[in-house]
Amino acid sequence: MSNVKGAGTNTDPDRLAFVALAHLVEPGRRDLGVLVRQVGATAALERLLAGEVDDNLRQIVEPRLVHIAPRGTVAEALLHAARATVRADRLGVDLLTPLDDGWPHQLRDLVRLSRDNGRIVDRDTDPPLCLWVRGAEPLADACDRSVSVIGARAATAYGEHMASELAYGLAQRGWTVVSGGAFGIDAAAHRGALAAGGVTIAILACGVDRPYPLSLSGMFERIVDGGGLLLSEWPPGSDPHRVRFLVRNRVIAALTRGTVMVEAGKRSGARFTLHRAIRLGRPALVVPGPATSESSVGCHEELRAEGTRLVATVADIVEEVGRIGLDLADEVRAPERTLDVLTGLQAQVLDGVRPRAARTAEEVAAAAGVAIRDARATLPALVDLGFVVCHDGRYRLAPAP
Amino acid sequence: MSNVKGAGTNTDPDRLAFVALAHLVEPGRRDLGVLVRQVGATAALERLLAGEVDDNLRQIVEPRLVHIAPRGTVAEALLHAARATVRADRLGVDLLTPLDDGWPHQLRDLVRLSRDNGRIVDRDTDPPLCLWVRGAEPLADACDRSVSVIGARAATAYGEHMASELAYGLAQRGWTVVSGGAFGIDAAAHRGALAAGGVTIAILACGVDRPYPLSLSGMFERIVDGGGLLLSEWPPGSDPHRVRFLVRNRVIAALTRGTVMVEAGKRSGARFTLHRAIRLGRPALVVPGPATSESSVGCHEELRAEGTRLVATVADIVEEVGRIGLDLADEVRAPERTLDVLTGLQAQVLDGVRPRAARTAEEVAAAAGVAIRDARATLPALVDLGFVVCHDGRYRLAPAP
Repeated sequence: MSNVKGAGTNTDPDRLAFVALAHLVEPGRRDLGVLVRQVGATAALERLLAGEVDDNLRQIVEPRLVHIAPRGTVAEALLHAARATVRADRLGVDLLTPLDDGWPHQLRDLVRLSRDNGRIVDRDTDPPLCLWVRGAEPLADACDRSVSVIGARAATAYGEHMASELAYGLAQRGWTVVSGGAFGIDAAAHRGALAAGGVTIAILACGVDRPYPLSLSGMFERIVDGGGLLLSEWPPGSDPHRVRFLVRNRVIAALTRGTVMVEAGKRSGARFTLHRAIRLGRPALVVPGPATSESSVGCHEELRAEGTRLVATVADIVEEVGRIGLDLADEVRAPERTLDVLTGLQAQVLDGVRPRAARTAEEVAAAAGVAIRDARATLPALVDLGFVVCHDGRYRLAPAP
Repeated sequence: MSNVKGAGTNTDPDRLAFVALAHLVEPGRRDLGVLVRQVGATAALERLLAGEVDDNLRQIVEPRLVHIAPRGTVAEALLHAARATVRADRLGVDLLTPLDDGWPHQLRDLVRLSRDNGRIVDRDTDPPLCLWVRGAEPLADACDRSVSVIGARAATAYGEHMASELAYGLAQRGWTVVSGGAFGIDAAAHRGALAAGGVTIAILACGVDRPYPLSLSGMFERIVDGGGLLLSEWPPGSDPHRVRFLVRNRVIAALTRGTVMVEAGKRSGARFTLHRAIRLGRPALVVPGPATSESSVGCHEELRAEGTRLVATVADIVEEVGRIGLDLADEVRAPERTLDVLTGLQAQVLDGVRPRAARTAEEVAAAAGVAIRDARATLPALVDLGFVVCHDGRYRLAPAP
């Protein structure tokens, strides 16, 4: 099974309407999303081309119409979409729309985020209209148990180590590792998952046919070859605009069961992704670092704010994102201390026993501040346990073994 | 002003009764504390000597009575207390009881903790009956603005660095740094405060005349010489029993406005002190460390539990323990980015401008996915700001400065 649709689906007009809309408008716009949810993609496309939409939306579409539907007809737009789909297919790129069985429906949660407060990253949070995918693994299955591992591009050796180790451990336990395909933490996370032979998904801010950055192309090929996926809501051929990275981040948060931020400076874009996870009600998990590290300032600020949880191990992450009761964190085991076998009273009495000067039970009781009765009852047990030796009714500490 | 009381107070029988009780019974016992609060120290001493108390308490006192009041009279016990006070005075050790003006009354909050669940560290949480002090600074004043900085003895270089830096910064801002006088984090905290010329208090689990460990005696002398204090609820001459460290920890938590745990392994005793702070309703603050460090496992577990807050800087600590509104954390300032001056729309339009290929406003709008009107309105501003250059109605990126 794969994400490729049969040839028939490529000529479904409703499906092609989604593709045409995704070519005409940058992803995440609430006005278009609301329209599509109200009247469907085909009617939304008709209204858009007829100019029967909000003036702002109409004007944004205008410059692209020249290329996609010069005469402004729906037939032109659908033909453009069909051709784009065929081209994508030749590139080995699959297409998913919300009409397809393999669509990851958890993305619909993004509807909750939409609000217009002026900044693009907060404004353009509507669910994607289309997803372009490279790789054989069915997307929805791969995301069923998935965690995003994100962080700064300018990562330290510590950060890359943590991202890689956590991704490795998650992949080993069957979790899909999702990240943004960037330098630093993202790349370390993908590589960790690959090293464990796991599935990893790189969610890009450009076309999946030309993954950015170029110098990571070897890694991108290994992701696809290793059963992972490259995914984008921009059509093949799209450039990685700066704003697109921020808009893209909401998909990383929405697609996964939880987000782990490994290393992030004060201004890291990873913090936006974490905030998306918080607002989606997904676990927003943060790995601490040395308090001396500028690269962890963003992590520590997030951990001081509401809505985040600290994670230091794979088990911590699995406890937070796993189904309740199924994936509880293994407790870290401290090395057993010999003194742990003692009761409180025994430990207190032992405090009154000296290494050299042998003491009577009464003297031990006086030193330890316990009842003579208790000292008398406890000292033989301490002798049995090998902590204390007794000669002529006087007690001193047993020599170390 | 100092903690020394006038000669007259040394013969006050009520005060001496506290001293006698502190010699007879290990600190923190709820049964004795309740009795003293009900009938006063003198009557409590009378009942104790007459055996008119709970059998358990009576038996605990028995082995020490031989040395303090062989015939079981109150006069003997008071005489013993008076002599001990004179001896302490000769050693330069001051004595405080709850009857004295300089007593730190926040210790009374410990009454809340008392409950008997079997473990000494949870059971013996009643307030101290006496405090012995070395150093000139009045104790109550020194504790008015104080923070405890605690952690493991087996600290790493990172942990000691953090303890020292945080204590230095707190001392610089006029906060008293309280700790337990042990190796590792404690010693680093005391030294940091000393380096800043600040007041620091070592709360010991043995007599203040013989501070333990011996190899830190140079540091203990510097604390006293530098205007700081050595403090203990055990009389001069007392040994540092292991249990006493745990019982002592409640005083560290109760005396201060908040507790900062710097580095603590899974089983560190510092975690008990932090738990005391949580149950007292004082800020329980924890410094994170590398997730790879065994020495921070206890810190990270506490940060994953309820009731703690992460702190990474002196400003974070002051924000948590300071009076609301007076000591807010300075926001860490990120280096200003040039792009920060742009509005969301400007940044989006800029994404559509290329370094070499000059584009028309319409082409920029198409690439960026914005309205032509918006591109036309925004591009001149980007030219004015120096991001873009314009030739013959076509725009390209300005060369880097």
